[in-house]
Amino acid sequence: MTARPAARPAAGRLAAAPGLEGLSLNTATTKRWTLPEAVDGCVRAGVPGIGLWRDRVAETGAAEAARLVREAGLTVTSLCRGGFLTAPDAAGRAAALEDNRRAVEEAATLGTDVLVLVCGGLPEGSRDLPGARRAVADALAELAPFAKEHGVRPAIEPLHPMFCADRAVVSTLGQALDLAEEVEARTGDDGVGVVVDTYHVWWDPQVEEQIARAAGRILAFQVCDWTLPLPADALLGRGHVGDGLIDIPRLAAAVAAAGYTGFTEVEIFNQEVWDTPGEQALRTLVERHRTHLARI
Amino acid sequence: MTARPAARPAAGRLAAAPGLEGLSLNTATTKRWTLPEAVDGCVRAGVPGIGLWRDRVAETGAAEAARLVREAGLTVTSLCRGGFLTAPDAAGRAAALEDNRRAVEEAATLGTDVLVLVCGGLPEGSRDLPGARRAVADALAELAPFAKEHGVRPAIEPLHPMFCADRAVVSTLGQALDLAEEVEARTGDDGVGVVVDTYHVWWDPQVEEQIARAAGRILAFQVCDWTLPLPADALLGRGHVGDGLIDIPRLAAAVAAAGYTGFTEVEIFNQEVWDTPGEQALRTLVERHRTHLARI
Repeated sequence: MTARPAARPAAGRLAAAPGLEGLSLNTATTKRWTLPEAVDGCVRAGVPGIGLWRDRVAETGAAEAARLVREAGLTVTSLCRGGFLTAPDAAGRAAALEDNRRAVEEAATLGTDVLVLVCGGLPEGSRDLPGARRAVADALAELAPFAKEHGVRPAIEPLHPMFCADRAVVSTLGQALDLAEEVEARTGDDGVGVVVDTYHVWWDPQVEEQIARAAGRILAFQVCDWTLPLPADALLGRGHVGDGLIDIPRLAAAVAAAGYTGFTEVEIFNQEVWDTPGEQALRTLVERHRTHLARI
Repeated sequence: MTARPAARPAAGRLAAAPGLEGLSLNTATTKRWTLPEAVDGCVRAGVPGIGLWRDRVAETGAAEAARLVREAGLTVTSLCRGGFLTAPDAAGRAAALEDNRRAVEEAATLGTDVLVLVCGGLPEGSRDLPGARRAVADALAELAPFAKEHGVRPAIEPLHPMFCADRAVVSTLGQALDLAEEVEARTGDDGVGVVVDTYHVWWDPQVEEQIARAAGRILAFQVCDWTLPLPADALLGRGHVGDGLIDIPRLAAAVAAAGYTGFTEVEIFNQEVWDTPGEQALRTLVERHRTHLARI
């Protein structure tokens, strides 16, 4: 249940190309690639990690996806995503928990212990933000024991506050850690952790102190850059590392100083990146990693 | 230097229409109106307060603007805006401070003690967010004594974190209060305060505790709503009170509980609102105030 060391691949693991130790491709970045194509791309480029999205996994089924990545020697660095835990009614809550249990099982099948959770926005028609946040805490306390039984750690991803209304009422790393600690206090399970994504946390005046506080709970480190202007809806404004305004090496150093030894997963939501061939997107991502992050 | 009571107009003050005590029109909301038109609109609607933007004031000059609002019996609830204090070079810093001193003088001329500060984003080409934040603190420490001499209080406005890169590196109310306290520690001047704007702070898990902490430093309370989807560039996505997802009465109650007795200023950046005739925008604003906020 501890972070896997990225630098020393176990037997049967793909050897990383020089400078790419600890690099992981999140499949959301290369949207045009199927899972087999993404796996193949990683192998050819010497990228040893892969972060999987459930829709991509569903294309082949979890068992086949697991076989593909295992035979390629890739490390699955996370499964994205569970969450959406703010339904206000019992039926909605039950359905969300059921879906999250399936996600936990998929993560276990895929051989990753990290299930990324995007916690959900305000319920339709509601302005009750404190209520939605309480709902997340309650759902996490229910999910955590099930995840533990399956050897999976729920990883709360705080999303940038501009997504508070519609995607995630968990808006800061500090709040995510408060939630993890609350779940531990309620269930005795210390397995709930957090995702640190540069895009979502870079603006936070407390980011460095909260990253330090997160020691032992950082389950994934995702990177992409803040580019301007923001596009409509703001979801697809993320850039390759180095294209924007975030001091990503500073955040990478803070995460390393907190004892995180896992992978750096590149997850970019950007229509322009999505429109480029997967090969090219991966090449750029690899170059940027070597330039900006390989020595952190 | 204390917040002016909104409910008991002094002699020569416009009597508010029923339910509109404490309501202020920020001139950014009625973009198509000149200052004389906005003043006239407030008088006809019985809106006793007006928040002024410097560009609008510049159209007539500060002295004439002051005469207009004084003769109409309106209270000037703020002057927007000074700030942009993150220039990395000496010449840029000096120019910004000079401009802010002019803004202080204009505020004094206009008869308001509240100068709203939007602190500025990252300097061109820079990713040094901590450095930009230090520059803001240094500039505020220089500006505060000058403001005090003129009977004006600098009001730091934390902007939503989505504006961190390009408009304001001050992203939370807690950070704004830390800055105000730092200035007090460095200069002995306790006059620096904050603006609480619902649009910018509503998402913050600490918002209620920070509003309570802000007691005595809340210099303006601005309201508008969070509507979806966000438009491109995100600047013009604000809605009339009640059109969006913020529980504005909850925040108004928190501000009142912190001892704030000043005006509620309606500031809406929204192309659709700007495209409607000023009369209509003001009518909607008044209706929404009566429905959602008059009894807070």
